[in-house]
Amino acid sequence: MSASARYAVADWGTSRFRLWLLDDKGVVVAERRSDDGLDTSRARGFAETLEDHLASLRAPADLPVIICGMAGSRQGWMEANYVSVPADLTAILSGAVKIEGIERDVRIIPGLSQSGNAPNVMRGEETQLLGAMLDRNLRSGLVAMPGTHSKWVELEDGKAKSFSTYLTGELYALLAGHSILRHSIGAAAETVSSEHPEFTAGLQLMLAGNRRMLGELFGIRAAMLLENLPPEGAASRLSGLLIGTEIAGAQERYGADVKVTLVASGAMATLYTKALTLAGLSFDSVDADEAVRKGLFVAASKLRPA
Amino acid sequence: MSASARYAVADWGTSRFRLWLLDDKGVVVAERRSDDGLDTSRARGFAETLEDHLASLRAPADLPVIICGMAGSRQGWMEANYVSVPADLTAILSGAVKIEGIERDVRIIPGLSQSGNAPNVMRGEETQLLGAMLDRNLRSGLVAMPGTHSKWVELEDGKAKSFSTYLTGELYALLAGHSILRHSIGAAAETVSSEHPEFTAGLQLMLAGNRRMLGELFGIRAAMLLENLPPEGAASRLSGLLIGTEIAGAQERYGADVKVTLVASGAMATLYTKALTLAGLSFDSVDADEAVRKGLFVAASKLRPA
Repeated sequence: MSASARYAVADWGTSRFRLWLLDDKGVVVAERRSDDGLDTSRARGFAETLEDHLASLRAPADLPVIICGMAGSRQGWMEANYVSVPADLTAILSGAVKIEGIERDVRIIPGLSQSGNAPNVMRGEETQLLGAMLDRNLRSGLVAMPGTHSKWVELEDGKAKSFSTYLTGELYALLAGHSILRHSIGAAAETVSSEHPEFTAGLQLMLAGNRRMLGELFGIRAAMLLENLPPEGAASRLSGLLIGTEIAGAQERYGADVKVTLVASGAMATLYTKALTLAGLSFDSVDADEAVRKGLFVAASKLRPA
Repeated sequence: MSASARYAVADWGTSRFRLWLLDDKGVVVAERRSDDGLDTSRARGFAETLEDHLASLRAPADLPVIICGMAGSRQGWMEANYVSVPADLTAILSGAVKIEGIERDVRIIPGLSQSGNAPNVMRGEETQLLGAMLDRNLRSGLVAMPGTHSKWVELEDGKAKSFSTYLTGELYALLAGHSILRHSIGAAAETVSSEHPEFTAGLQLMLAGNRRMLGELFGIRAAMLLENLPPEGAASRLSGLLIGTEIAGAQERYGADVKVTLVASGAMATLYTKALTLAGLSFDSVDADEAVRKGLFVAASKLRPA
């Protein structure tokens, strides 16, 4: 381990675990990524899983740990209650829960909830959001955080005012891997390309206000049977249809002219950059990995000042 | 077996096999239902599977068999080519293919296809459609055949002019059984009720022109976490959202004032009756089981006159 590590921070989700050791400025001194999501970790023990990963980075026994994500859910390590919107995001810091009965100082950051006629929840993205807001000094506008469950958050006066969640990524995985479309997509599910004309075609169909998504999905199968649409085309069209539906839905809710901050990394960032551009939305981009690390670092340094 | 059996007819789909022995007027003299869909039957042999079911009804060796459904697909027993729309449905009769290399006279009815900028296919529903058209002397209007892949067919001058397919039933099964919503729905997936206020609420949301389906889906999960939405409410809301999306899409395509013939049986008929009524569409109902049997009987009596 690096002698300079001051905090360990982790984004612990349903299917992924990411751990970073940070110095007192928030600079990464070591990192670790694994598939130790909730189900695996529950079976083995959350504390054991965490300690194994910390040991592999040779983290000392007194290094404090801050965690965000589904580890704080009812199915996780310990439930961290939600903070309700509208919320100043620093409220999530004071709501962190400390794990009892273990030697190490480990705390889990709460999620955000929204009650009323559009109930909603998030866990993990609130920390990413905090990082993005600090990074760009955001106080208003929309923040889009695409993924398995894409989150769109409306900011006002420096607070998270309201948010919505779209099942885009999960639906893509289900349809590509488990529906009739699996015969058309097969192993190509990971080959979605923002440059593929079928991605653009799918986006444009849904952005134009088409309400026939359930019909367009089967159309992918028919195009494969009748027109030999190849697997990578089918995968790209499916992705375009779903991302287009998400963005059309968000535009319906938030208006067409809103300023968006896109928080995404890698392939996801490329796909949504293309989609937001085609939708005619003006936007700015923040790297999602950096945002969540920044949010975790802020939480760590507030909860355990150096 | 009954001495009066003149034909055996079967609807052989991806997951279900239904067989009827009919007399020379089309009256059912014996029937059999099983889960011997394509995958099971391919492994065991299509001819063996069919003969076992026929033997259980004591059908004689020279009884001719007419089959519709996915047994005629590329993944089925023998591929029966598609007939293109616009099509007079009697064309599907002359396109039936005879299985070679077996003793019994077995023929499979082709499906319908649609090329051009909205490619589409059906197998099985063309026979149901033929039965419904003959039963009601339909020559124009829309025919809705809900199910795993709901089909909406536009009729003109007694022909099938065009059609569309909605992934409604398949998406319901995927979301209720395999997505994050499975935690909210669990064993209640089969408890959808047309009388449940959540079914109505889901329908109304989507029929009103809401484009946020991907957001409303996650809302079911949030309502369970924050408001204790019970499993049967979650199942009914999910069904309402999906059926509402299907009907809103069909209305967008075909107009709000079109006359619909609903071809459905059992619980499906009840749900769509409620949904079409809420959508303000005028419609007439035909039992789906009777329609497919009638279509199969017409095919059998034309291909093998008594």
